[in-house]
Amino acid sequence: MKFSPALQELMEALRCLPGVGPKSAQRMTLHLLERDREGASKLAEALQDAVDKIDHCSRCRNFTELDVCEICSDLRRDAATICVVETPGDVLAVEQSGSYRGLYFVLMGHLSPIDGIGPEDIGLDKFQRRVLDEGISEVILATNPTVEGEATAYYLTDMLQPQGIRVSRIAHGVPLGGELEYVDGSTLAHAFSGRRVVE
Amino acid sequence: MKFSPALQELMEALRCLPGVGPKSAQRMTLHLLERDREGASKLAEALQDAVDKIDHCSRCRNFTELDVCEICSDLRRDAATICVVETPGDVLAVEQSGSYRGLYFVLMGHLSPIDGIGPEDIGLDKFQRRVLDEGISEVILATNPTVEGEATAYYLTDMLQPQGIRVSRIAHGVPLGGELEYVDGSTLAHAFSGRRVVE
Ligand SMILES: [Zn+2]
Ligand SMILES: [Zn+2]
Repeated sequence: MKFSPALQELMEALRCLPGVGPKSAQRMTLHLLERDREGASKLAEALQDAVDKIDHCSRCRNFTELDVCEICSDLRRDAATICVVETPGDVLAVEQSGSYRGLYFVLMGHLSPIDGIGPEDIGLDKFQRRVLDEGISEVILATNPTVEGEATAYYLTDMLQPQGIRVSRIAHGVPLGGELEYVDGSTLAHAFSGRRVVE
Repeated sequence: MKFSPALQELMEALRCLPGVGPKSAQRMTLHLLERDREGASKLAEALQDAVDKIDHCSRCRNFTELDVCEICSDLRRDAATICVVETPGDVLAVEQSGSYRGLYFVLMGHLSPIDGIGPEDIGLDKFQRRVLDEGISEVILATNPTVEGEATAYYLTDMLQPQGIRVSRIAHGVPLGGELEYVDGSTLAHAFSGRRVVE
């Protein structure tokens, strides 16, 4: 069918958003043009702005528009502890939990030999230097409890322990408020293998 | 929590999209920056392009970047029949059904005295002139089967019938393949009041 090219292009361009199929792209396009052209202009600007300005922090690799991100340069944080996560989304999740006051290192992925992703691709050479240079006392591994995340955690442990760094792994198991019956099998397996003796 | 302003602004700007809450805005932002910066740039351009170029067809009021849209200027279409719909999305739906070969008039809304939306706000003065000027033989009313859509259809009927124009209303009822049990009450009411004697 014939439809205005600019409209068609917008519908297609919206498909780059995760979870947006042809139907919602169409709904979004018509909504913006009928009711929120100002929002559409602002979104266009925000997108280009983010793409142009956001790069990785030179210290922790998290997203930032500065050379060193706001978390890394926050003097109130515990600079002797680094939490290693896979993605900027993980940093957000930990920050939102309010349970951590140290610094981060963002791998932007995980080790995956099958995809040709080795230690240097996730910045581990850089990370090793940083840990030594900054006299870090503890590294908390918060990679995902997946095969790749676990392999990455093992690799980091092997790399850091010989240097006298305390290495810890966050706990995995049944989430608080989670009913055993509805928890998936691998989480339960984790919960059992990670059990502690009650003292 | 502290987060890069450009990132925060993008998360907020994405909320202008229908159905996008804070969680999906965050997921979209991280996805674009981590994995599809090119898509984000293209989307920015397509948004601004659509906002700048798309206006209403001077003949049917549908979205177009031309003065007269491609449907209106398509000589293979039946120019003696006009289908009246509420929104450009309705045009899309009818076009996709492949069941109609005439022209359109897009109200960009419906009569709603309570919101101060009268006949001129939905272009009916213009539409009346068009019907007379172009010697239209049939006007098909495809406004929605809502209180406002029906009121708009009644108004159009009263306006056009005295001028000798054939006015018809599309059928409303149980959708094909729809199970009676799962059809909502007002659709069923429509289906009953619109019943035809089997001959
Ligand atoms: Zn940083
Ligand atoms: Zn037109």
